[in-house]
Amino acid sequence: MVIVMNKNATPAQIEHVVAALIDKNFDVHRSTGVSRTVIGAIGDKHAFDEREFLVLDGVSEVVRITEPYKLASRTFQQEDTVIEISGVKIGGDEVIVMAGPCAVESTEQIQAIASAVKSSGAKILRGGAFKPRTSPYSFQGLGEEGLKIMRKAADDHALLVVSEIMDQSQVELMVGYCDILQVGARNMQNFDLLKSLGKINTPILLKRGMSATIEETLMSAEYIMAGGNYQVIICERGIRTFEKYTRNTMDISSIPVIQKLSHLPIIADPSHGTGIRNKVAPMARAAVAAGAHGLQIEVHNDPDHAASDGAQSLYPEQFAQLMTECRLIAGAINKSM
Amino acid sequence: MVIVMNKNATPAQIEHVVAALIDKNFDVHRSTGVSRTVIGAIGDKHAFDEREFLVLDGVSEVVRITEPYKLASRTFQQEDTVIEISGVKIGGDEVIVMAGPCAVESTEQIQAIASAVKSSGAKILRGGAFKPRTSPYSFQGLGEEGLKIMRKAADDHALLVVSEIMDQSQVELMVGYCDILQVGARNMQNFDLLKSLGKINTPILLKRGMSATIEETLMSAEYIMAGGNYQVIICERGIRTFEKYTRNTMDISSIPVIQKLSHLPIIADPSHGTGIRNKVAPMARAAVAAGAHGLQIEVHNDPDHAASDGAQSLYPEQFAQLMTECRLIAGAINKSM
Amino acid sequence: MVIVMNKNATPAQIEHVVAALIDKNFDVHRSTGVSRTVIGAIGDKHAFDEREFLVLDGVSEVVRITEPYKLASRTFQQEDTVIEISGVKIGGDEVIVMAGPCAVESTEQIQAIASAVKSSGAKILRGGAFKPRTSPYSFQGLGEEGLKIMRKAADDHALLVVSEIMDQSQVELMVGYCDILQVGARNMQNFDLLKSLGKINTPILLKRGMSATIEETLMSAEYIMAGGNYQVIICERGIRTFEKYTRNTMDISSIPVIQKLSHLPIIADPSHGTGIRNKVAPMARAAVAAGAHGLQIEVHNDPDHAASDGAQSLYPEQFAQLMTECRLIAGAINKSM
Amino acid sequence: MVIVMNKNATPAQIEHVVAALIDKNFDVHRSTGVSRTVIGAIGDKHAFDEREFLVLDGVSEVVRITEPYKLASRTFQQEDTVIEISGVKIGGDEVIVMAGPCAVESTEQIQAIASAVKSSGAKILRGGAFKPRTSPYSFQGLGEEGLKIMRKAADDHALLVVSEIMDQSQVELMVGYCDILQVGARNMQNFDLLKSLGKINTPILLKRGMSATIEETLMSAEYIMAGGNYQVIICERGIRTFEKYTRNTMDISSIPVIQKLSHLPIIADPSHGTGIRNKVAPMARAAVAAGAHGLQIEVHNDPDHAASDGAQSLYPEQFAQLMTECRLIAGAINKSM
Repeated sequence: MVIVMNKNATPAQIEHVVAALIDKNFDVHRSTGVSRTVIGAIGDKHAFDEREFLVLDGVSEVVRITEPYKLASRTFQQEDTVIEISGVKIGGDEVIVMAGPCAVESTEQIQAIASAVKSSGAKILRGGAFKPRTSPYSFQGLGEEGLKIMRKAADDHALLVVSEIMDQSQVELMVGYCDILQVGARNMQNFDLLKSLGKINTPILLKRGMSATIEETLMSAEYIMAGGNYQVIICERGIRTFEKYTRNTMDISSIPVIQKLSHLPIIADPSHGTGIRNKVAPMARAAVAAGAHGLQIEVHNDPDHAASDGAQSLYPEQFAQLMTECRLIAGAINKSM
Repeated sequence: MVIVMNKNATPAQIEHVVAALIDKNFDVHRSTGVSRTVIGAIGDKHAFDEREFLVLDGVSEVVRITEPYKLASRTFQQEDTVIEISGVKIGGDEVIVMAGPCAVESTEQIQAIASAVKSSGAKILRGGAFKPRTSPYSFQGLGEEGLKIMRKAADDHALLVVSEIMDQSQVELMVGYCDILQVGARNMQNFDLLKSLGKINTPILLKRGMSATIEETLMSAEYIMAGGNYQVIICERGIRTFEKYTRNTMDISSIPVIQKLSHLPIIADPSHGTGIRNKVAPMARAAVAAGAHGLQIEVHNDPDHAASDGAQSLYPEQFAQLMTECRLIAGAINKSM
Repeated sequence: MVIVMNKNATPAQIEHVVAALIDKNFDVHRSTGVSRTVIGAIGDKHAFDEREFLVLDGVSEVVRITEPYKLASRTFQQEDTVIEISGVKIGGDEVIVMAGPCAVESTEQIQAIASAVKSSGAKILRGGAFKPRTSPYSFQGLGEEGLKIMRKAADDHALLVVSEIMDQSQVELMVGYCDILQVGARNMQNFDLLKSLGKINTPILLKRGMSATIEETLMSAEYIMAGGNYQVIICERGIRTFEKYTRNTMDISSIPVIQKLSHLPIIADPSHGTGIRNKVAPMARAAVAAGAHGLQIEVHNDPDHAASDGAQSLYPEQFAQLMTECRLIAGAINKSM
Repeated sequence: MVIVMNKNATPAQIEHVVAALIDKNFDVHRSTGVSRTVIGAIGDKHAFDEREFLVLDGVSEVVRITEPYKLASRTFQQEDTVIEISGVKIGGDEVIVMAGPCAVESTEQIQAIASAVKSSGAKILRGGAFKPRTSPYSFQGLGEEGLKIMRKAADDHALLVVSEIMDQSQVELMVGYCDILQVGARNMQNFDLLKSLGKINTPILLKRGMSATIEETLMSAEYIMAGGNYQVIICERGIRTFEKYTRNTMDISSIPVIQKLSHLPIIADPSHGTGIRNKVAPMARAAVAAGAHGLQIEVHNDPDHAASDGAQSLYPEQFAQLMTECRLIAGAINKSM
């Protein structure tokens, strides 16, 4: 941490800041220039609130010089994390695709979609059994029955399963059916849930919150890792801005930014990132071109009658064409798909 | 819902949209103008996804004409909701103040603060026992022990108690100690938690999420109300914008907006809304001037050594002065405090 | 500026950074800690791009420690700037009100409004003669004729005149009619215009751009001041966020923030800040309660037939009531109005 | 326009709204449902303020059903606009690249860069002679001398020239040197400048403002087109959000959105869109993958000593590699480059 004092800070104010730093176990280096004093504070704690020093008399500015996360940082681990599940590797040179409906609705539906996405190249089947709906009057998911039929459909087509967990009370149930547990954008800072996921061995797909900074997203990954579960995949799915034509503004630049800051895999979800079908393909291609380790895409065999999010689900043939295009784009940057 | 067709929409496309609407139980009114057709759709469902129609061929625009919430709406209940707890009325002409530390730390601390805020006019003691911290390495709260000593301090000073609940597993414990349960900004869309709070009788203080629209905030209130608990207080605590000098941008205008849309009480939290002590008083005064039904303010007897959020906590004497100023402002708009 | 090196930065990388700093005329202080090196750089230039150092090999973070503005800073001038025009003082303890229509439309209109706002206590008449309209097909203002009749109406009622300048070609014309020239939000970074306003003696009312940070707003003030015109009044008028119920989100907290950073007066425009009539009064009251030096409010004698912005204009009797309320609020914080 | 009345709107209120619509030359269609009345209003004006009706008594919601722009709309012109300048076609299947330094600094600099970008495949040389700098103390550009040496370098290497115009007083000068005039993000709503550009024949590159919606961006294009100049190229260069790791958040989804709404070409500027060198290539690739008609990229022969924006300028060899990657990506979606 670097603390910049005001030009007219008094010696007593400077001493007070130094004392406060020492009181919090920081090593202190003082630099007195012609016009102002700058204090460097070195500690090994990752958790402190720099505002505590900002409010002291005579202080002009306070700057952290370490990221608040540790295990998620590239400083902690230089090489990329590659998560391997039954032979599928997430975080390497192959772009991995997770596809399926917003919500599991029926055996026929999930079997038809599993078959379609598998034949186009998806490796992982997605589908919600517990749905975080904005309205209490909307379809809330099939629950365990949904997990059961999705697991069957995945097994029948040699696919892995990813599904969203909404509450820590569901952990035991869900690990029985899923290969990857997804934390939704709205629960990215549900810390009790994150803590409970730190205690299991199942890989976690952590979606960036709609207003979460990249740093906060990595802090939520840190919560899971601090509990002992290092298998975390980050997912960009759009942030909230003033623009109204799209549901969210997909922050494609978060892909290279996170790859610089962290060793964790980062994938993109253009379905939620845009919210409307005909924008999904361009944004999926953009994410691959920017270097994403994977994609999560909503595909439905009958989007017009989907129980939820039909408007952003691709038809199977649109998905097939998109996969062909993305494969070529991956090749352009020396990746496979 | 109003569906505007493209200028060059074909009769077949129009028929398809009409059929889709009827299929979803809407009554349909068609208006054919010189240049385009406009379709009115009337239904009694509050939960549908207008994007389903937006993606149909020939559709230019789709507009909801009803709010997605019902119980929280002023259309449903015209007069203001006033929540009365042991004689304290929230939602009426008296501006109610909740004050106390970010986190309960010790008996001495909470007793000292309770005494100070009571003497300045606060009616409710706030304090966290379970803390939603961005970092897993930060102080996470005293848990039940914290609730116990806060309850005692409140009772000793004839104050009510409000404290944050983070997970549905804490409901039973917390209703034993608190008069109001607070849902934090990060949990505003933790739907399992909201559902569980709909089943109890304790009033809920629902904080607006950092990127939540006003509509989404009211939808989260609707979740609680749909379960049967109509005692919901909304709290504005700042939204996320590009501005960096303040931690959040407090949306003071949400106060009159929510008062127009909903009958629920709306209070303001300038401590989190700004994140820094010397901005708390101006924003508290602004909220009262804009018509807020109450304030929630962090006060600490020793902010320099607070376990969390010391930088945004007022000293007791600052709080006392603020109360005096706010009382005069309340009077200027025919309210008391 | 403080430059934080990576943990594994090499001595050669550190030397390269030091050389680059010296090359740009900075004095360099080096601090080598256990885990990393921190370099302090002191210079007297206000204009440099810290990203130039951020891209150097081995650099982790770069932090400015001085504001990029100088003349506008409270470090440069500690006491508040008070701008006096014909006995009206802006920036002192009296809250000054500028009121009038969005656009000047006719002699009858502007005379009626001037009379109304004067009798309620406004000191300055506002009105646009050149209108920055989003659409090329909208009413663009009466031009010089509008200035002429507004000047007459102001003189008839002992009011000052503020009006918006859109292009540097209008400077000479407008100084002949106006006491204050207003720079609109959309022109806040029209640097040629700012430079031309730096060369005149007329006070400038500078509106914060819709996406301008507080720092950028002060930088635009600096442009004017750097040319020699120190009479700059800042105006908060709402920033752009994801919230859709209001046209803009008025950042009330910018008022105390700017008062801390700068000595320049800061006023608030709740008419543009909210965009809708029934939100203007609560936000005007909030701005006064937060400590604004003044208000700019749109008032129209016949809003239903206004040539522009009728929806956000107050009726004269609403304005009169608002002034009464604001006067009481100003009194609550030891100000007059 | 569709006007939705409140559930309890009185017949008199409905009549008043109808009368107000007729007064403004709208044709009115009334639809009375069980619970509320919906009024359709059809007119041929593109410029009206829907808020005028929103503030009328009894009105619940007002919705435009036509875009406020006309000439820029795909409804007006269904086929893509292709702008041809000396054989270079912008808006067709070939991805066109504009490259060069932020600012023209010297003959040696601009000749070296022109040579480098030409050999990698750029068709247009970019470079600023008049620079819109946030600080009045920063380098403001070489002015006409810069235009002169850039024109020479472009001619020597068979490149076209694009450069930024900051004020309408520069039009005559700049058309003598440039093939395309660029309007910067900060001047996107400098309406006097836009009007003056509507009167010339030179193609205009219009950058989206940092907080401009897509609709406002197209309205600014409409300003130019309304004057008679139909050769407008839109440029996405990043919008302002809460994320701080990147200077702006590049809204890649604006590319397919604008292509649906408008027939005008849309290109992307990843240099300003990210603000930092190592993010430029991923975002350039993403823009091409999303379907952009072109790119504008800052390239400098000696970024470490650039007069401005060196931190976001590519080295010539980085640019060469990027061009190779983008060419493959363009091929993946049946485009050339």
